[in-house]
Amino acid sequence: MGSWIEVSKDSDFSLQNLPYGIFSTNGTGPRIGVAIGEHVLDLKVLAQDEVFADLKFDATTLEQTTLNAYAALRRGVHRAVRSRVQQILQKETQYGDVLRDNEERRKRALTPLSSVTMHLPMAIGDYTDFFVGLHHAVNCANVIAPGKGIEGLCPAFFHLPVAYHGRASSVVPSGTKIRRPNGQMKVDDKVIYGPCQKLDFEIEFAAFISHGNELGSPIPVDEAEDHIFGFVLLNDLSARDIQAFEATIMGPFQGKNFGTSISPWIVPFDALEPFRTAPKEPRQLAQYLTEKKTESAYNLPIRASLEVDSQKYHMVEGNTNNVIFSFAQMIAHHTRGGCPLRTGDLIGTGTVSGPEREQIACLLELSLVEKEGTEFAALDASIGTVRRTFLEDGDVVEFTAQAKSSEGNVGFGHCRGQILPALES
Amino acid sequence: MGSWIEVSKDSDFSLQNLPYGIFSTNGTGPRIGVAIGEHVLDLKVLAQDEVFADLKFDATTLEQTTLNAYAALRRGVHRAVRSRVQQILQKETQYGDVLRDNEERRKRALTPLSSVTMHLPMAIGDYTDFFVGLHHAVNCANVIAPGKGIEGLCPAFFHLPVAYHGRASSVVPSGTKIRRPNGQMKVDDKVIYGPCQKLDFEIEFAAFISHGNELGSPIPVDEAEDHIFGFVLLNDLSARDIQAFEATIMGPFQGKNFGTSISPWIVPFDALEPFRTAPKEPRQLAQYLTEKKTESAYNLPIRASLEVDSQKYHMVEGNTNNVIFSFAQMIAHHTRGGCPLRTGDLIGTGTVSGPEREQIACLLELSLVEKEGTEFAALDASIGTVRRTFLEDGDVVEFTAQAKSSEGNVGFGHCRGQILPALES
Repeated sequence: MGSWIEVSKDSDFSLQNLPYGIFSTNGTGPRIGVAIGEHVLDLKVLAQDEVFADLKFDATTLEQTTLNAYAALRRGVHRAVRSRVQQILQKETQYGDVLRDNEERRKRALTPLSSVTMHLPMAIGDYTDFFVGLHHAVNCANVIAPGKGIEGLCPAFFHLPVAYHGRASSVVPSGTKIRRPNGQMKVDDKVIYGPCQKLDFEIEFAAFISHGNELGSPIPVDEAEDHIFGFVLLNDLSARDIQAFEATIMGPFQGKNFGTSISPWIVPFDALEPFRTAPKEPRQLAQYLTEKKTESAYNLPIRASLEVDSQKYHMVEGNTNNVIFSFAQMIAHHTRGGCPLRTGDLIGTGTVSGPEREQIACLLELSLVEKEGTEFAALDASIGTVRRTFLEDGDVVEFTAQAKSSEGNVGFGHCRGQILPALES
Repeated sequence: MGSWIEVSKDSDFSLQNLPYGIFSTNGTGPRIGVAIGEHVLDLKVLAQDEVFADLKFDATTLEQTTLNAYAALRRGVHRAVRSRVQQILQKETQYGDVLRDNEERRKRALTPLSSVTMHLPMAIGDYTDFFVGLHHAVNCANVIAPGKGIEGLCPAFFHLPVAYHGRASSVVPSGTKIRRPNGQMKVDDKVIYGPCQKLDFEIEFAAFISHGNELGSPIPVDEAEDHIFGFVLLNDLSARDIQAFEATIMGPFQGKNFGTSISPWIVPFDALEPFRTAPKEPRQLAQYLTEKKTESAYNLPIRASLEVDSQKYHMVEGNTNNVIFSFAQMIAHHTRGGCPLRTGDLIGTGTVSGPEREQIACLLELSLVEKEGTEFAALDASIGTVRRTFLEDGDVVEFTAQAKSSEGNVGFGHCRGQILPALES
């Protein structure tokens, strides 16, 4: 299925994707758009022009400055709108007069990606970060509880999707610069205060909730996917030394609330359907976590690169297939005790490291393997390498991900952020 | 300073208090009011009638359905409005024509407390729960890490205000019934799934944030109190068995996100000024936590009662003076690494147990002292006693608190909730 808009073979944004985002330009305020090739299609313009009138949903939800109201309309509406946008954009179309052959509207509705600023796609109510990556947990156990194994570190790990509540206010869109945090930490058995010395990234995958549940009314596991609007990449930046000192009984707090980046485009739930796989370590679970669907996870490689002095170095490639619980299981567990989810809630998987050295998805784990720091090769071979134990000031970390298909790629754009030096402590 | 509205000597809501809340009646939607004696004064009516016109602030903030926009106007405005409302309500007043002598407006603006429904006072962005109660920590250490002491349980305890991110969506106003959660727990070394068997309350004190800070811009400790709008009581209901199994490295999650009750009236920051005291355990702290003010905590007893079959039993009385860090220190620490606070954020102290048996502020700690369960005496002596190890279905837990003064009491109303039986698991 090709589009009359140019979509290069390696583009993230094929007709099979059509991710939603909130964009602005110099002349216009934040609004809802869909990415296609090198352009953004302005859904506010289409809604105001009553292009979706026959679809019988509240199209004013497409005129908002966040995706919350539209997401809350549920899958049936999202599917109808996505299908209509595909029809409008495909080469052979009965909807040619909507855009392809309407120059005036094309000018109003299509903007080059290069000229837009992206914003947080949803107003985030609560952000929950899970810990369901198999190899990440194995490696963390080796660091934190040597010899005791995962179940020594976290007895519940294989029984339920372990999680902590994250900080919604510190979730920022790709491109936001993040300041190295100051905090208290233990160095040589002394408690000191100063800039974090062990600043790390974590490659994560995350889902936005379309509609939630009432307090006290759990979501059954086989209905849980209906509550997912779509997906983003997430960089759970972590201050390992601050985290290690504070997190003994209450979990991560200052170690992880100084900035969490997400990619700005929400890839629709339906767009990732062709890229399913089963979670790792199939095993007997409590009934409320037992899914009818077996392929309930996703096979999506996520690459992390490091940019130093404008040179890009490939670091590692995680994969969302390293989880031992699906999003459906995370949602079912999250709500089982009665906790309400709401439209716009964000749910992260935790770090999705693979079993191999080059699949390790954070520096804490890599430092297990290579204690003198890890050497990363530049994309441009003439440049050479850089070495990192943890992140340095000025470093730019960037995640990208692309589910590849001959029908068209489903990619996520960039999840990117530069580290600023700490404030004077 | 007396009011022309009747305020009984034991009322929570004297002219010295004037707490803000969101109320509705059969005939009207949610709106902002102030409690006085047995009445609510409707600030929307006063704002629409331009009673505050000369105070030169945006009075449409008093016409909203939450207190967020008004809180964001900062202390100077809150102080001017509170002072004007006091003037309008006091016996000898130059503002008699505003309300006292204006029967038509009195009818529109005054509603008996007995006929209103209270709602969440603010839209809560993020909810953070600290762990700064001295005796609670001592007792928890005895339960969780016998023989190791507080610093064995939590090495950071005396160095910084330890905290975890709570779940904003599960914060509910007093009166909301809370269902006993189902979850996984370890019993006799076996992992089982079912209704929580160790359901507990926790007496806490909490502050609402009036205005926040930008990502990466910490709030200095001596400016931190400027960011407090006011205070509420908070019941951090806890499922001890679910919590114990899940919370080994990531902190509390399902153990504490099934319902957290708060009292519906926000007591203004200024109203608690006469009731100051110093935090416990004065000691050398990092510079960023060192306050100029010494009396930075509050002396406020909080009583917990249990209602069984409509009979009320006194349980315990905690006190907010048992904290080792002030709210200013909590805010300074919370933002030190760069984490943004926002208007409407809620910050809890953690359990405020005192050193004596009758000052212990949760059942987990009491069960240390009295392993066969604790006997609570009925307020009506002819009724006798009940015994509880943990909460039972149908139990109503109620917190009340009153800072007493001959000038007039500053009280909080009720923080109350009934336990519903678990859903079929």
